[in-house]
Amino acid sequence: MTQGTPVQDRLTLDELADAWQLLPDEDRVVALKELSQDQAHDFFFSLPTVEQARIVLALPSEERRTWLRILPPDDAADLIQEIPAHDRDALLALLDEPSRKEVAALLAYAEDRAGGLMNPRYARVRPDVTVDEAIRYLRMQAREALESFYYVYVQDDQQRLLGVVSFRELFSADPSVRVRDIMHRELVTVSDQLDQEAVARIFAQHPFTALPVVDAEGRMKGIVTADDIVHVVREEATEDIQKLGGTVALDEPYMNVSMPVMIRKRAGVLSVLFLGEMLTATAMGAYEHHIQRAVVLALFIPLIISSGGNSGSQASTLVIRAMALGEVRLPDWWRVVRREMMSGLFLGAILGVIGMLRIIIWEQFQPIYGPHYVVLSIVIGISLVGVVLSGTIAGSLLPFILRTLRLDPATASAPFVATLVDVTGVIIYFTVASILLQGRLL
Amino acid sequence: MTQGTPVQDRLTLDELADAWQLLPDEDRVVALKELSQDQAHDFFFSLPTVEQARIVLALPSEERRTWLRILPPDDAADLIQEIPAHDRDALLALLDEPSRKEVAALLAYAEDRAGGLMNPRYARVRPDVTVDEAIRYLRMQAREALESFYYVYVQDDQQRLLGVVSFRELFSADPSVRVRDIMHRELVTVSDQLDQEAVARIFAQHPFTALPVVDAEGRMKGIVTADDIVHVVREEATEDIQKLGGTVALDEPYMNVSMPVMIRKRAGVLSVLFLGEMLTATAMGAYEHHIQRAVVLALFIPLIISSGGNSGSQASTLVIRAMALGEVRLPDWWRVVRREMMSGLFLGAILGVIGMLRIIIWEQFQPIYGPHYVVLSIVIGISLVGVVLSGTIAGSLLPFILRTLRLDPATASAPFVATLVDVTGVIIYFTVASILLQGRLL
Repeated sequence: MTQGTPVQDRLTLDELADAWQLLPDEDRVVALKELSQDQAHDFFFSLPTVEQARIVLALPSEERRTWLRILPPDDAADLIQEIPAHDRDALLALLDEPSRKEVAALLAYAEDRAGGLMNPRYARVRPDVTVDEAIRYLRMQAREALESFYYVYVQDDQQRLLGVVSFRELFSADPSVRVRDIMHRELVTVSDQLDQEAVARIFAQHPFTALPVVDAEGRMKGIVTADDIVHVVREEATEDIQKLGGTVALDEPYMNVSMPVMIRKRAGVLSVLFLGEMLTATAMGAYEHHIQRAVVLALFIPLIISSGGNSGSQASTLVIRAMALGEVRLPDWWRVVRREMMSGLFLGAILGVIGMLRIIIWEQFQPIYGPHYVVLSIVIGISLVGVVLSGTIAGSLLPFILRTLRLDPATASAPFVATLVDVTGVIIYFTVASILLQGRLL
Repeated sequence: MTQGTPVQDRLTLDELADAWQLLPDEDRVVALKELSQDQAHDFFFSLPTVEQARIVLALPSEERRTWLRILPPDDAADLIQEIPAHDRDALLALLDEPSRKEVAALLAYAEDRAGGLMNPRYARVRPDVTVDEAIRYLRMQAREALESFYYVYVQDDQQRLLGVVSFRELFSADPSVRVRDIMHRELVTVSDQLDQEAVARIFAQHPFTALPVVDAEGRMKGIVTADDIVHVVREEATEDIQKLGGTVALDEPYMNVSMPVMIRKRAGVLSVLFLGEMLTATAMGAYEHHIQRAVVLALFIPLIISSGGNSGSQASTLVIRAMALGEVRLPDWWRVVRREMMSGLFLGAILGVIGMLRIIIWEQFQPIYGPHYVVLSIVIGISLVGVVLSGTIAGSLLPFILRTLRLDPATASAPFVATLVDVTGVIIYFTVASILLQGRLL
């Protein structure tokens, strides 16, 4: 496969990977051709679909065919979805007839469903052939560009899935036995409409390299393989992490996002949080006279409210991740919130004690908190318990509320919970202060 | 394989999955035996290693052998690592001789290295056999419990890796041709000491289902398969997400973590953040006389500092994830920080304008900010630009600093950055206020 170009002229794969993000599309095409064919194909495979599509569009039309045809049908379908609608038919026409049919069928599925992930080429046999016949038949299938070679699926003439045999089992079985007698009948299948996140969960729960995809009538349509799922799991985790950090999912590598898009994806969330946080100014306005009389109270506001934000951020992050992994489901909400209430009480007590000690010890060396410093320290301690508790409750409850409303729980990001808890924190703090300091500082 | 128990007596897989977390170890063993053997094995496979180990320990010693032997050597090695040291030799002794050797070799590797992930059973042939001989030889290898059947690795007599052929290629090749003539020589290999996160990145960059693992001398030791990597990617993402949320990684499903462990894993980070946040009280103490004279300044403190925290959280989350995905590396630091400075200026300007408008418009309806409300609004606007900018700079710079110090960048969690920026925010805000309000409010 390798062409006879002298080695010293060759761009290495690492050099290309380093320079890639900086190259315009035309130079990328030139650079790809500098690699050996094997390396160029590997590198092309490894690119995100968006970039594959840009490469193909940057090529003269007579060269597009080669690159498009090295892609398995599922990847070709993804690529064609990235292309402007008016160019799609021209690209489809470059494929050979059977591939075009497969790609067109895949294009009917949403990209994030099992049907959009699956590969329609897989090894199949009838139940009544012998092992030896099956192996001979598979050698024929292999010539027809069979992509995935892990399991052999046993189907009836309606393409309904009857069982599965691994290649290992087929190879080690008595050659004269029937496939029907060695196949597994208890099957894990995936509906072609299943969301890709759910498909990833099924992969994590079973030790299989590939899973069969079936339609509503039980007909097998293709297989999803673990290597596709590696991409899905990384993508979904990236999306969740970005949402948890208070951004809309970027959907592109960080360095590729243009400045206007970057600002747009972040300014929205930031502005909403800012508007929410304005309520703290309103809440504090209600206690302006308290601050007037006891300025010392203002000093602890950031400390108090940020503790609520931090504990809320812990709670929401843990709960959102547990939901994404399928460890926690909607009916578990009360058990989770109860756990988080317990955690909040303990964590609040720990911070409360640290806070009280800080004030009492500090005062011995540098008397700045006035004669009522002990009561002040009690105000801080009690407020911390209340604020941390409100943080863990809000942080654990919100993801469940969002899921009930069929919204993405990851929207209950750390910044979002912190903002909510900041307002509550101001109210808790000044309420405790009003009660305990009445007649003393206030 | 399936035993002849009447179906109506059987626990279903879903029923067991629902009840699992609530069952003590002894009941789990009983429940597993209620399933059909296929289902029980699948379910056992799907459990986290810690739980597999607890099941095996809960079994009478004569039954341990069966369950241990169904695990491939890499999973058996993981399980044995979870077992208290004094029980390990007894378990190893339950394995048959070849498996015991394989498992003992794997136990020498750290669990999070390629060597600890790999499976030592793979299909191998010599370069000079013909395709037909190779296929016959593989049918023999398959009988010896060959686990992974994706690629055939071509080795010399020193176990050095010469090339690779996929099963599909082998099956579709001319039976009389030599393997040497159809094998690929440009190989992607993984060092046995490579960190599992780096292995996952290599999988994401190449379209392979399995990668060969080689030692420092180039000898092949095993293969890592994409289905193992699905677990790794999920685990690593979970760890990163939990750290980003301001917790130490739980390493166990959320609902399984006992309350004392949960408190311990969260109280540490929370207390460190609390101690850091105490600096805000100190910083504000320095401006106590400002607050005394202009209480109105205190009202905006949560709004100002939280905006810095939110923008910092966005920046650090995006940068940390881009680092984990390999999109951004150490030498990129200046390009990233420059991007974030631009983002910070724009985002700060947007929030600054919203903040100024808020004060100016509000004052028209409800005059609470006094005669200098326009200057006050300018103070808020400028402070917001400064604070948001300091957030994006700190949030983008910190992950690079941590990586340079060989610490995990994910430690620069949203709460950590927010705490840092809170202190800076107080100082920026009061400095701007001192300059602009001198002679007016102050």
